[in-house]
Amino acid sequence: MARTDLSSHFIEEARVRVDSALDRWLPKPPACPPLLSEAMRYSVMAGGKRLRPILVLSAADAVNDDPHYDAAALALPAACAVEFIHTYSLIHDDLPAMDNDDLRRGRPTVHRAFDDATAILAGDGLLTFAFDLLSRPETSADPAIRVELVKMLSRAAGIGGMVGGQMLDLAAEGRFAQGASNKLTERDVAVLQAMKTGALLRFACNAGAILGQASDNEAAALDRFGDAIGQAFQIADDLLDVEGDSAVVGKATGKDAAAGKATMVSILGVAGAKARLHELVAGAEDALAPFGTAGTTLVTAARFIADRRS
Amino acid sequence: MARTDLSSHFIEEARVRVDSALDRWLPKPPACPPLLSEAMRYSVMAGGKRLRPILVLSAADAVNDDPHYDAAALALPAACAVEFIHTYSLIHDDLPAMDNDDLRRGRPTVHRAFDDATAILAGDGLLTFAFDLLSRPETSADPAIRVELVKMLSRAAGIGGMVGGQMLDLAAEGRFAQGASNKLTERDVAVLQAMKTGALLRFACNAGAILGQASDNEAAALDRFGDAIGQAFQIADDLLDVEGDSAVVGKATGKDAAAGKATMVSILGVAGAKARLHELVAGAEDALAPFGTAGTTLVTAARFIADRRS
Repeated sequence: MARTDLSSHFIEEARVRVDSALDRWLPKPPACPPLLSEAMRYSVMAGGKRLRPILVLSAADAVNDDPHYDAAALALPAACAVEFIHTYSLIHDDLPAMDNDDLRRGRPTVHRAFDDATAILAGDGLLTFAFDLLSRPETSADPAIRVELVKMLSRAAGIGGMVGGQMLDLAAEGRFAQGASNKLTERDVAVLQAMKTGALLRFACNAGAILGQASDNEAAALDRFGDAIGQAFQIADDLLDVEGDSAVVGKATGKDAAAGKATMVSILGVAGAKARLHELVAGAEDALAPFGTAGTTLVTAARFIADRRS
Repeated sequence: MARTDLSSHFIEEARVRVDSALDRWLPKPPACPPLLSEAMRYSVMAGGKRLRPILVLSAADAVNDDPHYDAAALALPAACAVEFIHTYSLIHDDLPAMDNDDLRRGRPTVHRAFDDATAILAGDGLLTFAFDLLSRPETSADPAIRVELVKMLSRAAGIGGMVGGQMLDLAAEGRFAQGASNKLTERDVAVLQAMKTGALLRFACNAGAILGQASDNEAAALDRFGDAIGQAFQIADDLLDVEGDSAVVGKATGKDAAAGKATMVSILGVAGAKARLHELVAGAEDALAPFGTAGTTLVTAARFIADRRS
């Protein structure tokens, strides 16, 4: 993609490409039982922002300055894999045994539209399918790159990442009979958030770096960028829970305060959290300096994360 | 391992090696939140038969006749990965929303010993960690082999395998508001069982073949063997549900008939199912003919599957 395109155009086009690729990759009968396929499609095609796949594509595009080489197109399977993982996590987190949410993106959650068993299996199916997709030659012709992506995604999504972060989050809400109090320090909240949401956003940037054939310096810059926007994303999310309109956000708000949950907003206050968010976005933009105008799309993505209303 | 060893000795030694490797690989704090680590350990170290990892080790050993090359030791990480997947499936299948079992291997199921949220996350964590483990150089020095194992395991465990089979199984019990009747034909039951339990057992044999550096003929023979014992396993399981003692089996029995569920036993009758089981084990042994005495351990494993009482 030519560098002269407006970054917002790149993002809009990336979203269309991602939606189309998700639709194409989603398992269908007879390879998949019809009801399972339907539940997976219901959740994946519910019209999310596609932030994580857009980051994969934007990062791949930022490091690759060969105008004849469409890095974004080559990064599409990995971009879909991270969206499948993200969607599975929403399905499982919404379950009655977890966050017990009835609404997601303005529609009934999967366990409300289908049932709990189908929701559990649709989540398990999407999680497993993400690794199937990463293992295919379409993801990269080089098996060493494919297996590196499997390693990185399993760690970002697993016990030291997203799954572990959700466990700490439920513990922080005092949801378990055993273990953990809900007196979290700022450091505890930072670790929890880096695991629960930061790890997957950071993976998206790193996956783009690998698939775009980044140099070591470029890869390190994108990792710093991913770390900063991961933190920014969660603070923006916590602010939305305090200040957002549930009709716009598409899910219940005010839940953190009701649960007495420690967040960066409860610890730093609304003004303090906004200041921190501003610093993080500035840091994310700084990290992109080596890319010059090639980093414009990622800058737009970072600002979108900070300013989003849903 | 020398070929003169008795196969039962190989199996006993393999079980000890697998238990020790599982204990070593199981994620621990601080890499994993303590309660999550505890729930994963509770389920993995509950003393299962380790049938799937033993098949990986036995298959690797059968194809590798270099006495100086310990194929079983090299296959241990992949063997543990398949056991982590198996254990996750038990945790999720036992959930109230699924089979609602209180007892597993004679102990409270994970959601009874902890809670539903912890059980869901422990399952998600084990599933994800299996792919982390397969992606490591310890599994194979060759990234192409590692990524091939990721592909095979994600398919055996996913929507066209174990997850899809569990979905069909719940549908067969009339558990869903939407879709599927419970009038299954013999062919339907065969497909369901090949997905739900057969695929992972077959994967175990195929993983052993790859890690033991099998020739094409040897790999095809082990795939036939894996297919036959996968079918045999499920018929033996269905027979146990009819004839087994729940105190010995370690979980509730008589559930299939109570649920009006179609199984090979309900379709073929007890005598017919036993005859089919016998044929399958004979077929599994035939498939091993090319290995001569090197296949003795796998023959023992096949007979164990057919004759097991728990």
